[in-house]
Amino acid sequence: MKNLVIGQSGGPTAVINASLYGAVKAFKESGTGGHVLGMVNGIEGFLSDEVIDLTESLTNEDLELLKLTPAAYLGSCRYKLPEDLTSEVYPAIFDNFREMNIGYFLYIGGNDSMDTVDKLSRYAASIQSPVRFIGIPKTIDNDLVLTDHTPGFGSAAKYVASTVREIVLDASVYQQKSVTIVEIMGRHAGWLTAASRLARKYEGDNPLLIYLPEAPFELEAFYHDLENAFQKNPNIIVCVSEGIADAGGTFICEYSDAAKLDSFGHKMLTGCGEILETFVRDKFGVKVRSIELNVNQRCSGMLASLTDIEEAAMAGEEGVKAALSGETGKMIAFRRESGNSYHLSCTAEDVNKICNQEKKFPKEWITGNGCDISEEFLTYVLPLIQGEPSRVMEQGLPKYLYRRP
Amino acid sequence: MKNLVIGQSGGPTAVINASLYGAVKAFKESGTGGHVLGMVNGIEGFLSDEVIDLTESLTNEDLELLKLTPAAYLGSCRYKLPEDLTSEVYPAIFDNFREMNIGYFLYIGGNDSMDTVDKLSRYAASIQSPVRFIGIPKTIDNDLVLTDHTPGFGSAAKYVASTVREIVLDASVYQQKSVTIVEIMGRHAGWLTAASRLARKYEGDNPLLIYLPEAPFELEAFYHDLENAFQKNPNIIVCVSEGIADAGGTFICEYSDAAKLDSFGHKMLTGCGEILETFVRDKFGVKVRSIELNVNQRCSGMLASLTDIEEAAMAGEEGVKAALSGETGKMIAFRRESGNSYHLSCTAEDVNKICNQEKKFPKEWITGNGCDISEEFLTYVLPLIQGEPSRVMEQGLPKYLYRRP
Repeated sequence: MKNLVIGQSGGPTAVINASLYGAVKAFKESGTGGHVLGMVNGIEGFLSDEVIDLTESLTNEDLELLKLTPAAYLGSCRYKLPEDLTSEVYPAIFDNFREMNIGYFLYIGGNDSMDTVDKLSRYAASIQSPVRFIGIPKTIDNDLVLTDHTPGFGSAAKYVASTVREIVLDASVYQQKSVTIVEIMGRHAGWLTAASRLARKYEGDNPLLIYLPEAPFELEAFYHDLENAFQKNPNIIVCVSEGIADAGGTFICEYSDAAKLDSFGHKMLTGCGEILETFVRDKFGVKVRSIELNVNQRCSGMLASLTDIEEAAMAGEEGVKAALSGETGKMIAFRRESGNSYHLSCTAEDVNKICNQEKKFPKEWITGNGCDISEEFLTYVLPLIQGEPSRVMEQGLPKYLYRRP
Repeated sequence: MKNLVIGQSGGPTAVINASLYGAVKAFKESGTGGHVLGMVNGIEGFLSDEVIDLTESLTNEDLELLKLTPAAYLGSCRYKLPEDLTSEVYPAIFDNFREMNIGYFLYIGGNDSMDTVDKLSRYAASIQSPVRFIGIPKTIDNDLVLTDHTPGFGSAAKYVASTVREIVLDASVYQQKSVTIVEIMGRHAGWLTAASRLARKYEGDNPLLIYLPEAPFELEAFYHDLENAFQKNPNIIVCVSEGIADAGGTFICEYSDAAKLDSFGHKMLTGCGEILETFVRDKFGVKVRSIELNVNQRCSGMLASLTDIEEAAMAGEEGVKAALSGETGKMIAFRRESGNSYHLSCTAEDVNKICNQEKKFPKEWITGNGCDISEEFLTYVLPLIQGEPSRVMEQGLPKYLYRRP
C-alpha cells in the first residue's frame, strides 16, 4: 500500500498534464490501493510538505479535463538539487518519503528534471532506500537524447506550423514588398523552429527562410538570402530560433545593447527578431515586422496535437508500470518502430545518460546553405502533429482544470 | 445581367472571407445571371484592371473553404480615394465599371473602406451612374458606429480571451512573484483589450488589471494597482491596449525614444508592453515578461467564433440583397433585438454617417478607477464568441484557400 508521489518541473507545455493524467489513472487502476500525491511546485514544494492527494481530490471528470489542460496543474519549479549527495537536503527529502509512505517517485520534466531523478536515485542507492525513481520526459524543445521525441514537442510544433501558416496569409494581403520575421522558442536546439517548415503549402511558398541555432547565422548571407527570396515573392516570411548565433558563437540577440539577465541569471534572449527587423529596414527599406510567438507556443491547449496528448498520457502510464515493476533511475523513452506506418513503443532508459545531454537538430536536415529544412524532417515530424482532441468549451472558451490559489 | 464587383480593404480579419463567401453565394443564388468579379488588392488593384471572375474560378468546395479561411483572399490595400471628386481617378474607375458591365459594387472593410464607398456613391450620384455601392463592415477593432458590433471582432475577442486564459495558466506555475503584461491591438478603441476580461474564471482570478485607451493611464496609479493586485495573487497578468495614453494624451509607447513611423506615416505603436515591463522590473524587482499578441489575434482561423463567421457571411449576403433592391451609399449594420436571448437583424445605414467616425468603448463599462471592466460588457460580448466551426484539416494543419502569386 505504498503511495506514489509525482511532480512537474521546468517550463509548461500543452501536455505535461496529460502525463499526470496517465500516471494518476494507471496507479489507480493498478489496484495497489496506494494514493497518488502531487507535489505542489515540484521538489521545491515537496521540501516544504506542499503535497495534495490527487486520488482524493480529482473526480473522473476532473481527470478528463486535466488531460486537455495546458501548463502545469501542480505548479512547477526550477530547483536544482545539490551536486553533493552528502547535503542535508537529501535526508530531508527521504524523511518526507517515509512520513508519507512513498514507494514511488515520478518526475515529469526536461533535462534539469532528469538530473533530479538521477541524483535522488543515486542517493537512494547509497542508503539502500526501496523508493523507485522514474522520469517522464517533457519539453517543447525536443532536445532529450535516447528518445525518438519528447511529449510537448508535437503540440508546440503543431502550434508553430498552424500559426505561421496563418501569419503567411496575413502578411501576403498587400502588394507592397514586406518582410515578416517570426521568432520561435529554442535557445540551443532548432527542432521547434524547423516545424515552421510544415506551414509551407507548395514549393516556393512561405516561410521562404528558416534559421536554426545549429547553423551559423551571418547577416551578409541573410542579406543575400533575402535578395533571392524577393525574386520569388514580394512578401517574405522568415522564421528564426531565438538562439541563432554567428560563426563566432555570439547570439544575434546580443548584437543589441539591451541584453538582460533573467532572475535565474540566464541571458534573456528576446531580441533577435527585433534586431533582424532593424537590419532589414535599414538595408531594404521595405515594410518589416517582427513577431515573437511567445509563451502560447508552449501552452496552447486549443491547438494541441491529439497524438502528443495520447503519447504524453502513455508516458505517464508507462512510468507507473516501470516503477511498480521495480525499475529505478530510468526515464520513459519513445522508440519509433521501423516501417511505413507510424508506431511507437516505450522503453526505460538510464536517466544518467540523458540528463545534462542535448539532442541537436541533425545538420544533414539543414539545407539551402543554412536557410531551409529538408523533406526528411517532414517525414519525422508529421506523425507527431496529427489529430485534434474534442475540446471542452464553456461559454465559447476552453474549459480547463485549475487549482485556486 | 449586370455583374457585381467586390473587394476587401484594410487589415485582415478571421472572417473577411466569410463575408466574401456570403456575397458570392447570394449573388449566384439571386439568379440574375451576372458574375461576381473580385478586385485583387481592393480599389488599388481595380484601377489597374486586376480582377478575377469568382463565379468561374471558385467551386462550391472552394467556397466552403473560403468561409473558414482567415486574412483577405482577394488581397487588400490601404488606398484612400481623393477628397476632390473632380479628380481623374473617378472617371477612370467608372470607365472600368462600364467596360466590365458592373451594376453593383461591394466593399468589405472598416472606416477607410466606408470612406471609399461614400465617395464612389457620391460621385455616382453626381454623374447619374446606375451603379449601386454597398459597404460590408469588417474590423477587429469594433469601432464602427451605427452597428451593434462588426464582423471580425467576435473572432478576435475569442482569440484574445482564449489566449489570455492560457497565458494565465502558463504564468502561474511558479511560486515566485511575477508580472506578465499582455499587449493587445487597439490604437484608439479598447473593445478588443476589454475582451481579455472574459478569460477571468472567478472573482479575483487573472487578468487582474486591464487598461484601455479610453481611460487615462498613469504610471503612479499603475504602481498602486499592482501593489493591490499582489495582495490577491503572487502572479499578476496585466492586459493593455497598444494605444494606452496618459491624461495629457501622450501614448505610453512614446515614453521610449524608439518610436518609429510605418511606411504610411502612422506611428508604430509596438512598445507599451516593453515600456511597462521595464517599469515593473525597476520598481518591483520581480520576474516580468511582456507579450505582444500580434497579428494572430486578427488572423487566427483556428480560434474563430462560429457566430462571427455566420454573421460575417450574413452581412455579405445582405449587402447583395441591398444592392439588388436598389440601395446605394449604405453600409450593412447589425441591430441586436431586445430581449433575453441573442437575436440579430440587419439594417442598411447611411455610409456617410459611418465613415470617419469612431465608436469608443463606453466609459461607464470601465471600472476600478480605470483598471477593470464591468459585467455589462460581458453580457454584450459573450454572444459574439459562441461556437466553433468544423475545421477542415490536412495532415494535422488547417487547410485554407489561397491564390498562388
